[in-house]
Amino acid sequence: MKKVAVIMGSKSDLPALTPCFEQLKALGIPFEAHIYSAHRTPDLAASFATAAQQNGFGAIIAAAGKAAHLAGALAARTVLPVIGIPVKASTLDGLDALLSTVQMPAGIPVATVAIDGAANAALLAAQIIAVGDSALTQKLLDAREAMRLAAVAADQQLAVD
Amino acid sequence: MKKVAVIMGSKSDLPALTPCFEQLKALGIPFEAHIYSAHRTPDLAASFATAAQQNGFGAIIAAAGKAAHLAGALAARTVLPVIGIPVKASTLDGLDALLSTVQMPAGIPVATVAIDGAANAALLAAQIIAVGDSALTQKLLDAREAMRLAAVAADQQLAVD
Amino acid sequence: MKKVAVIMGSKSDLPALTPCFEQLKALGIPFEAHIYSAHRTPDLAASFATAAQQNGFGAIIAAAGKAAHLAGALAARTVLPVIGIPVKASTLDGLDALLSTVQMPAGIPVATVAIDGAANAALLAAQIIAVGDSALTQKLLDAREAMRLAAVAADQQLAVD
Amino acid sequence: MKKVAVIMGSKSDLPALTPCFEQLKALGIPFEAHIYSAHRTPDLAASFATAAQQNGFGAIIAAAGKAAHLAGALAARTVLPVIGIPVKASTLDGLDALLSTVQMPAGIPVATVAIDGAANAALLAAQIIAVGDSALTQKLLDAREAMRLAAVAADQQLAVD
Amino acid sequence: MKKVAVIMGSKSDLPALTPCFEQLKALGIPFEAHIYSAHRTPDLAASFATAAQQNGFGAIIAAAGKAAHLAGALAARTVLPVIGIPVKASTLDGLDALLSTVQMPAGIPVATVAIDGAANAALLAAQIIAVGDSALTQKLLDAREAMRLAAVAADQQLAVD
Amino acid sequence: MKKVAVIMGSKSDLPALTPCFEQLKALGIPFEAHIYSAHRTPDLAASFATAAQQNGFGAIIAAAGKAAHLAGALAARTVLPVIGIPVKASTLDGLDALLSTVQMPAGIPVATVAIDGAANAALLAAQIIAVGDSALTQKLLDAREAMRLAAVAADQQLAVD
Amino acid sequence: MKKVAVIMGSKSDLPALTPCFEQLKALGIPFEAHIYSAHRTPDLAASFATAAQQNGFGAIIAAAGKAAHLAGALAARTVLPVIGIPVKASTLDGLDALLSTVQMPAGIPVATVAIDGAANAALLAAQIIAVGDSALTQKLLDAREAMRLAAVAADQQLAVD
Amino acid sequence: MKKVAVIMGSKSDLPALTPCFEQLKALGIPFEAHIYSAHRTPDLAASFATAAQQNGFGAIIAAAGKAAHLAGALAARTVLPVIGIPVKASTLDGLDALLSTVQMPAGIPVATVAIDGAANAALLAAQIIAVGDSALTQKLLDAREAMRLAAVAADQQLAVD
Repeated sequence: MKKVAVIMGSKSDLPALTPCFEQLKALGIPFEAHIYSAHRTPDLAASFATAAQQNGFGAIIAAAGKAAHLAGALAARTVLPVIGIPVKASTLDGLDALLSTVQMPAGIPVATVAIDGAANAALLAAQIIAVGDSALTQKLLDAREAMRLAAVAADQQLAVD
Repeated sequence: MKKVAVIMGSKSDLPALTPCFEQLKALGIPFEAHIYSAHRTPDLAASFATAAQQNGFGAIIAAAGKAAHLAGALAARTVLPVIGIPVKASTLDGLDALLSTVQMPAGIPVATVAIDGAANAALLAAQIIAVGDSALTQKLLDAREAMRLAAVAADQQLAVD
Repeated sequence: MKKVAVIMGSKSDLPALTPCFEQLKALGIPFEAHIYSAHRTPDLAASFATAAQQNGFGAIIAAAGKAAHLAGALAARTVLPVIGIPVKASTLDGLDALLSTVQMPAGIPVATVAIDGAANAALLAAQIIAVGDSALTQKLLDAREAMRLAAVAADQQLAVD
Repeated sequence: MKKVAVIMGSKSDLPALTPCFEQLKALGIPFEAHIYSAHRTPDLAASFATAAQQNGFGAIIAAAGKAAHLAGALAARTVLPVIGIPVKASTLDGLDALLSTVQMPAGIPVATVAIDGAANAALLAAQIIAVGDSALTQKLLDAREAMRLAAVAADQQLAVD
Repeated sequence: MKKVAVIMGSKSDLPALTPCFEQLKALGIPFEAHIYSAHRTPDLAASFATAAQQNGFGAIIAAAGKAAHLAGALAARTVLPVIGIPVKASTLDGLDALLSTVQMPAGIPVATVAIDGAANAALLAAQIIAVGDSALTQKLLDAREAMRLAAVAADQQLAVD
Repeated sequence: MKKVAVIMGSKSDLPALTPCFEQLKALGIPFEAHIYSAHRTPDLAASFATAAQQNGFGAIIAAAGKAAHLAGALAARTVLPVIGIPVKASTLDGLDALLSTVQMPAGIPVATVAIDGAANAALLAAQIIAVGDSALTQKLLDAREAMRLAAVAADQQLAVD
Repeated sequence: MKKVAVIMGSKSDLPALTPCFEQLKALGIPFEAHIYSAHRTPDLAASFATAAQQNGFGAIIAAAGKAAHLAGALAARTVLPVIGIPVKASTLDGLDALLSTVQMPAGIPVATVAIDGAANAALLAAQIIAVGDSALTQKLLDAREAMRLAAVAADQQLAVD
Repeated sequence: MKKVAVIMGSKSDLPALTPCFEQLKALGIPFEAHIYSAHRTPDLAASFATAAQQNGFGAIIAAAGKAAHLAGALAARTVLPVIGIPVKASTLDGLDALLSTVQMPAGIPVATVAIDGAANAALLAAQIIAVGDSALTQKLLDAREAMRLAAVAADQQLAVD
């Protein structure tokens, strides 16, 4: 199976990524995590992205806050799908990271999920890899059904009085 | 090759999708376009999404404006990657559509591109399908290189005096 | 008397709905509460809304956060008045939920109240049912008068020194 | 049948209300239109709202821009459902009117529709009156079905090549 | 000396007004405080404002949050200067109250101060009354000079090492 | 009668001030207009404000766009009431000017009106001067009554069919 | 004298830079202009920035719109001062470019000017180079004085009647 | 070496400046810190800025919150580079300070860094002084390399399991 790369701009982004790692593990998707910064280690980020396809990756997840350039910087170096997670920092509630991630110019897309949407980034990576992998597709359908049943159960147990 | 579905919420979204269709054609990616509304024809939208994988689609692009529920409504019915294009309407400059598209709850991701980012939606769909298709990957690399050369040429022809 | 349906997208929305339930009880309005998600249980949401009028409901209240599609998804399936409560989540202070709820396209209205405006959603549902119910109208007038008297008393007891 | 009142804060709001009047006429709902300003003619606004229920109205639609107090001012004087239309003015794209209309304090709800959402305000008023009027409910269902068929036709006629 | 009226929309606005009362007392300006709501006690608010000039007031301060209509509602009933304080509530950081207070239509001004700017509202009221009162003008000049000296002292005591 | 000073930051603000001048003339209020910039001619702005009270002014109106410091810079040099008009420039719809004008720190108030609210700035200046001038108060009451009658007439002539 | 580099992300940014070029020429500052994109030609951008100091540049100006990564990408490769101009694009009025440019993480500053603030970017570059160049300092003082005199003249010619 | 001036509008801005002082000390850059307010001590601010170049300063850093005029007021009095730090206050998350600092009119630039971006303000001042100081340039390159190595080490120590 293709691997997923999870790149964060700073070690401080690690807690925001916990749901991403958990989701990838739950689906049995192999992944590598790295701290590469578009600003502090731009060469590492560039060389990783440039080689990612040859190295067996099927999608790259990038998480960064503030003027979040990481996802775009990686996307500029690969034609693999790059998924951006805007991370909420100490001001502006993540709006800066959202706009910096999603408003990419024509030619270099970034698949942006919600602010702090780490679980969905993992699911989206899985959905991308599953396009050519019917077993993973089935796992995703099963997880979706489990989620549905949990919601049904929550409704049935709801007691308002 | 897997097909791409391009769904718009209203016929008024058609002009905003022109760059999407052009990009898909340039890459030789088969696609189907439909007008399905999350609000006016929710059953059609739901049944299309539910059957999309079986019907040979590899990704779904959804474009809508204002309280843009379309991408999320489709994503709720499939585990195919769903790409959302927030469309700018007569007020708020597309911010409403962006937030309605990208801020999805955990469990149902939407891969959101820029406001009116139709060309990038097509490229992202191509990148997703290319994960398992080396010929398409090469086409994307070629297109990327052509874009690079055009930018280099623009720089070389730049005359400021 | 027509019943009011109170639908929340997730169990996590329950605390935000407490003032809604209290207000409905205070006015003696029968209601049912459910957890139906536009994304995780879209079929339940759709079938509930489709049958709501036949099942004796006079209004539907829907509470959801982030890309809050719930009210719109219900409104797409019924001509009953649907009242949307945008719920504040961990980022953006509810602005995403407000725009996702209120900016509905022409044809499918959602009667939107303030962010976390659960009490007003209940009052609005009551006002809607009261259009054809003079006893409930009187209750609403009485509650309004009580509110007025409480404000008058608060003014009279105000001591600034 | 109960009447609908359509109140605008200024004559300059009249063009924004055209879709409202057209929708009310299409549904055969009797209505009265007035220019009452929360700021320039507050007494007229107050006395109209106070007497609206006795005068046979079932809902009030209020349209205003900028610091749009009109819907709230009317709602303070009646327990009829009051529907607010935030009108886009020369700056801020209607965001000021939206927040001024929707963010009402507990006790006095305003059922807010989208910025410049005049058609939906009319539909919402009709839906409210229809709660106790099965003929009007049928008209709304018919209009909804017509809208659905128009969307289906638009999809079938869609030609992208 | 003309009195200043300090009107708050709700008792919950009282803490935000503490700096206002302290500033008025420090300047020896007589004032009355009231809880009048544009929505819950609109008649009291209207009659107070209508009579304010005859009752010896020279300026009215109004504090309210969310869809803050209070200052505008008072301003509609008097030609006294009305000063609006937008009060920060539980969502949107006071932006809703700011826009609801400041974006008044032509004809009815509200002199708006900063979000939670209670001290400045008192100072502005004092400045207005001081236009015709040289003793109060001198007090304001003295307070300004004391503020300047405190800033100078803070600078002189600043130690950064 | 006290004079009103109308200060604009740039000649480009002149068109936005036309309603201000017309309103002051209509009320017979003497005024002086100047182009003083907080950034290009800060000494002129400072010396004008410092001497304004001695020179017979009763209020200062300041209009500026973008990072609109003018009203605050004048207010720092006088205890006269300073009225700020945020002027809409080529980006951000005046939001930058609004926040730069209204969000003043404690100690130096600016009485802020709506974005491009020039007419209301003039009215507010008139209301301030009228606190000690019963003839001007009467003029303001007359203007208010004329505005009311115009609104009543507009309502009576309203024909919607 | 050190040169100034003016880098734009796309040829479409050229018109927004006209005031920059004019200002640099008026001050006699040597400059080079290039089209380098953080996304389409990231290697060119990186190598230019890496070598800029050795190549005699004293400051770099970077102009880009939307998710404006260019200034940050250049700043990551040099310790020369990098000045960012957020360029207004077709949506969001430049707010996306502003936040993408200014909200840089600790370690890599970008000196950001106003949206479309090309003239000020040139002035800031000149001020930076002038820190060690008394002749250029004098030119800047002369330009400032000329600007002051123009403002004084505009005030003296102002006629409002 | 040229000195750096660090000016804050209020003593309450001191904590936000700690990273600035630490960075300046780490680079061995001489600096002076002052509390000068554009509103409470405008003369001190003006005279300091006017004399700053003669007094051996090479750059001025200004930190202020809310309607943050300080950087602009200093910049109006000097042609030294002025760096503005928008400081987050109790409402609006620093957006008001950001816009008040960055949106300067043509002619008077302010080099704006991120909200609460004190460390970057110090680095930018150092970069400006380093344009003519190769030893400081080397220190900045060393610091950049140390930052890079720390990021590399963080990546190598990253363990996600």
